[in-house]
Amino acid sequence: MISRMSTLFLRTLRDDPADAEVPSHKLLVRAGYVRRVGPGIYSWLPLGKRVLDNVARVVKEEMDRFGAQEVQFPALLPREYYEATGRWTEYGDGIFRLKDRKGADYLLGPTHEEMFTLMVKGEYSSYKDLPVNLYQIQTKYRDEARPRAGILRGREFLMKDSYSFDLDDEGLKRSYELHREAYVRIFDRLGLDYRIVSAMSGSMGGSASEEFLAATPTGEDTFVSCTDCDYAANTEAVEGRAGVALDASDEPALKVYDTPDTPTIDSLVELFNRLDLGRTVTAADTLKNVVVKLRHPGAKETEVLVVGVPGDREVDLKRLEAAVHPAEVELFEAEDFAKHPALVRGYLGPQGLAEAGYTYKVDPLVVPGSSWITGANENGKHAAHVVYGRDFTPDAAVGAAEVRSGDPCPRCGHALTIGRGIEIGHIFQLGRKFTNAFEFDVLGPDGKPVRVTMGSYGIGVSRAVAAIAEQKHDELGLVWPREVAPADVHLVATGKDDSVFEAAATLAVELDHAGVSVLFDDRRGVSPGVKFKDAELIGVPTIVVVGKGLAEGLVELRDRAGGERENVPLEQAAARLRELLG
Amino acid sequence: MISRMSTLFLRTLRDDPADAEVPSHKLLVRAGYVRRVGPGIYSWLPLGKRVLDNVARVVKEEMDRFGAQEVQFPALLPREYYEATGRWTEYGDGIFRLKDRKGADYLLGPTHEEMFTLMVKGEYSSYKDLPVNLYQIQTKYRDEARPRAGILRGREFLMKDSYSFDLDDEGLKRSYELHREAYVRIFDRLGLDYRIVSAMSGSMGGSASEEFLAATPTGEDTFVSCTDCDYAANTEAVEGRAGVALDASDEPALKVYDTPDTPTIDSLVELFNRLDLGRTVTAADTLKNVVVKLRHPGAKETEVLVVGVPGDREVDLKRLEAAVHPAEVELFEAEDFAKHPALVRGYLGPQGLAEAGYTYKVDPLVVPGSSWITGANENGKHAAHVVYGRDFTPDAAVGAAEVRSGDPCPRCGHALTIGRGIEIGHIFQLGRKFTNAFEFDVLGPDGKPVRVTMGSYGIGVSRAVAAIAEQKHDELGLVWPREVAPADVHLVATGKDDSVFEAAATLAVELDHAGVSVLFDDRRGVSPGVKFKDAELIGVPTIVVVGKGLAEGLVELRDRAGGERENVPLEQAAARLRELLG
Repeated sequence: MISRMSTLFLRTLRDDPADAEVPSHKLLVRAGYVRRVGPGIYSWLPLGKRVLDNVARVVKEEMDRFGAQEVQFPALLPREYYEATGRWTEYGDGIFRLKDRKGADYLLGPTHEEMFTLMVKGEYSSYKDLPVNLYQIQTKYRDEARPRAGILRGREFLMKDSYSFDLDDEGLKRSYELHREAYVRIFDRLGLDYRIVSAMSGSMGGSASEEFLAATPTGEDTFVSCTDCDYAANTEAVEGRAGVALDASDEPALKVYDTPDTPTIDSLVELFNRLDLGRTVTAADTLKNVVVKLRHPGAKETEVLVVGVPGDREVDLKRLEAAVHPAEVELFEAEDFAKHPALVRGYLGPQGLAEAGYTYKVDPLVVPGSSWITGANENGKHAAHVVYGRDFTPDAAVGAAEVRSGDPCPRCGHALTIGRGIEIGHIFQLGRKFTNAFEFDVLGPDGKPVRVTMGSYGIGVSRAVAAIAEQKHDELGLVWPREVAPADVHLVATGKDDSVFEAAATLAVELDHAGVSVLFDDRRGVSPGVKFKDAELIGVPTIVVVGKGLAEGLVELRDRAGGERENVPLEQAAARLRELLG
Repeated sequence: MISRMSTLFLRTLRDDPADAEVPSHKLLVRAGYVRRVGPGIYSWLPLGKRVLDNVARVVKEEMDRFGAQEVQFPALLPREYYEATGRWTEYGDGIFRLKDRKGADYLLGPTHEEMFTLMVKGEYSSYKDLPVNLYQIQTKYRDEARPRAGILRGREFLMKDSYSFDLDDEGLKRSYELHREAYVRIFDRLGLDYRIVSAMSGSMGGSASEEFLAATPTGEDTFVSCTDCDYAANTEAVEGRAGVALDASDEPALKVYDTPDTPTIDSLVELFNRLDLGRTVTAADTLKNVVVKLRHPGAKETEVLVVGVPGDREVDLKRLEAAVHPAEVELFEAEDFAKHPALVRGYLGPQGLAEAGYTYKVDPLVVPGSSWITGANENGKHAAHVVYGRDFTPDAAVGAAEVRSGDPCPRCGHALTIGRGIEIGHIFQLGRKFTNAFEFDVLGPDGKPVRVTMGSYGIGVSRAVAAIAEQKHDELGLVWPREVAPADVHLVATGKDDSVFEAAATLAVELDHAGVSVLFDDRRGVSPGVKFKDAELIGVPTIVVVGKGLAEGLVELRDRAGGERENVPLEQAAARLRELLG
């Protein structure tokens, strides 16, 4: 295919869009790949549509390769199916809901577990039918609270979602592994630098759910990786690993102090340093106790949970929520404290919580034998020398503190590093949640019903375009990997000489016949400088310049990524390019 | 590609779905191509997805061939754009509207004129930039009052919509012609039997809008075609052609009769035949006067219009509406009659309507000099010998009567025939409605702004699948044209002999390597009869049977459409098939 820039629906922009913060957003708009329609809603211009199609093609090829079968569901879905699993309500503000002319409720599908379960249940009934892996590449909708970064977090986006159906856990693991291998091939072909990280903490089985994160400083997800072993996890999913217990036998008895005017941990630390406990106190010596409410699925009442973390750390609510899944975490508000006078706001300590009937859990950084400055459960008073195992005993440990670079790896104890990434894929051994909801059994070999088990797998196709752009660019513009580039070759004709344009046009046709797609800058009256700038911004991997050199019969090949240049006789150019393109 | 039926996600059904009335709906469900999710909402199973993709591919290839450029818009669109053109309101119940979490209004795009206009306005500013033709193949939403016939009239459907932008009417005609030619190639390649009919009556320019109708008795659209000339039009768009005036000089004077108990035209005719007017009276001798309200765009008040048609014809409200476009036609209700005592319900005649200030138009079947039995504008009374030109003079003619087979062609006067069809394509010289709404000008060669003119063009991609199925089937099942078939060859292995299955598997691989896609029925323990029935139902154009004949080294090739059978040596089968497939 030859696309001539004289007629291509493309206008590059000199300036970054005002609302753009991350490089992919800036460059995809400036280079004419996407345009904003509304918050989190974008359209794809011709070059963008090609890149999107290329990513989708790679995904399709690798899904087909392992025997997954493509289907297509509507986005407009009746409420009843999502009501059956409780997700109509669970999604809260996160989905788009609407009514039809008859007042019937619909949603725009954010993900299709319900629909696939019902589809397979509708067709299959025997153990002989399984396993089956089905996928679709389909437009999804989520009413994000904060759509951002162009197509990186949109409200309408293209996703590959797939679902596996197996007879048993072993089968599910095989389907999961097939997906995992396909994802590795897909993201390798897309040229992405990515990490596979646990998306679930150890208690639920870290290998039952993994995320593929494209490493980039602008990513929304944070993940840890061990500097020594191969442990890597989403920060939310970092396993809590019990630390080594300390010997507290020399610790003085618990003592209560008047601590007026200590609204912050800093002011509390300052006060205790003035009190002179025999050592310098830091925020890490204080024990912060945070009260939350857990809302268990289907439960009317919430459960109160007190969580203790070292005072120099924030509670990571997402990590806590991952740890208490499927319960949801809600903040404890002033009105809640009013109903629980035993929980003294601002002066809460773990002493006596169990006796008062409250559940108390600590982050694993709070180890047995550790001694703390903490609330004394009286207004205006704090206690020191509050010892784990002597003055309080938590009900359990829970990974709740923010994870920091240098924290010990939960597997091997070496230091963790923290990175940021964009979630481009997610694989999940879902189990029987949905097959239970729809009572999907097949007849087993012994004639008895077997409840089917499922996996659920996603790739953000449009997001992958942004992730590639985020990783593959330089100060001049985009630098697409060959597999997804909008063309194989960007052919630039420069100057005013007709013979140059004719030679370039002939080369374009020659390349086209050889199956090489060409973006041909055939514009007259546009300076070479503008054309080169556009070529660098657009980011096709190989740039061919037909210009001054033609007097000596030469054209120039430029590698967009490395910048290498090479002069080649015109008549050898097509052959050399086919060689370069493999 | 080889798809093995032992693992293919496909279950054919013996019985028609209860809600299916038309063949395409029955067969696409029974053969496992689509499944119902909700009213007018369907999912595509693997075989259906392939056919849908094939149709989309043909559309894309032919759009690309004439230089149209593919883009992609979201389906979720902010209200503001459709508010600017008035369509947010105009669509009435016909579109899906929704709110996001912040309460902002959105719609699900039924068509994208607004968005394309704004997109081109955003990028282009000079006459040098035009013409441009842009298209997308995208999911559309319409909240149909009566979704029907499976995917034939769905509420979520796949459509190719395109838009041309030109400087002047000549350019628009060229873009329109390019689309028209592309549509002819597309529908020819899809194997459809179709008619191109005027979609707009003569007063608005019949050639400015045409529909492509797939001829089938189950179609929702009716169209006329002339038995002599090449005139063809949607019934709604049939031009009104004035008939030959009659000589009424011998007609007796208007006479009023008491006509009690004549609630229907039949009873009126019976009465007048008893009165003996000197000839036998039929319903065609009576003049029926129907009152409607015209709602002009933007007008608060409606206009009253009285329309006269021969009493043996119904008023075709769609045809009338097409004729008075852009006004909408509303029925005159009892409460309206109450406000207009001069319009005597059931006894309305054209005499004196002009004096009473009402507009009166007649269908062209009511010719000058014709004499009628009609209302006398008094309760219980009718008049006879009411002569056009003597006793009443209409303000104008308007094509309002139902069109019948045998009616005169408005071009040549020969008889029209009536057919039914499915609208699969529509091309429309839209003009400046949207560029006016968004004030989209480009700078002309003389430096002065030129208002851009647009065309709008659509193909129902998912509907085309149903239209093909509607035309291409027999009593056994579907009969796909090669270009859209879910596979090139349906390879059936029969019997219990391992060597048969091995030979078939080898042939499948051989075909696959030759680029022939194979649907391979490799199921064990399924009878030949069931396999043949499935093959006939599924409708792949060529069926290959590897079975008993293999003992003599032969396989059988069957043509699904014609039923021809041919025995071919196994080792020559692949070559022969490649020959057949062209």
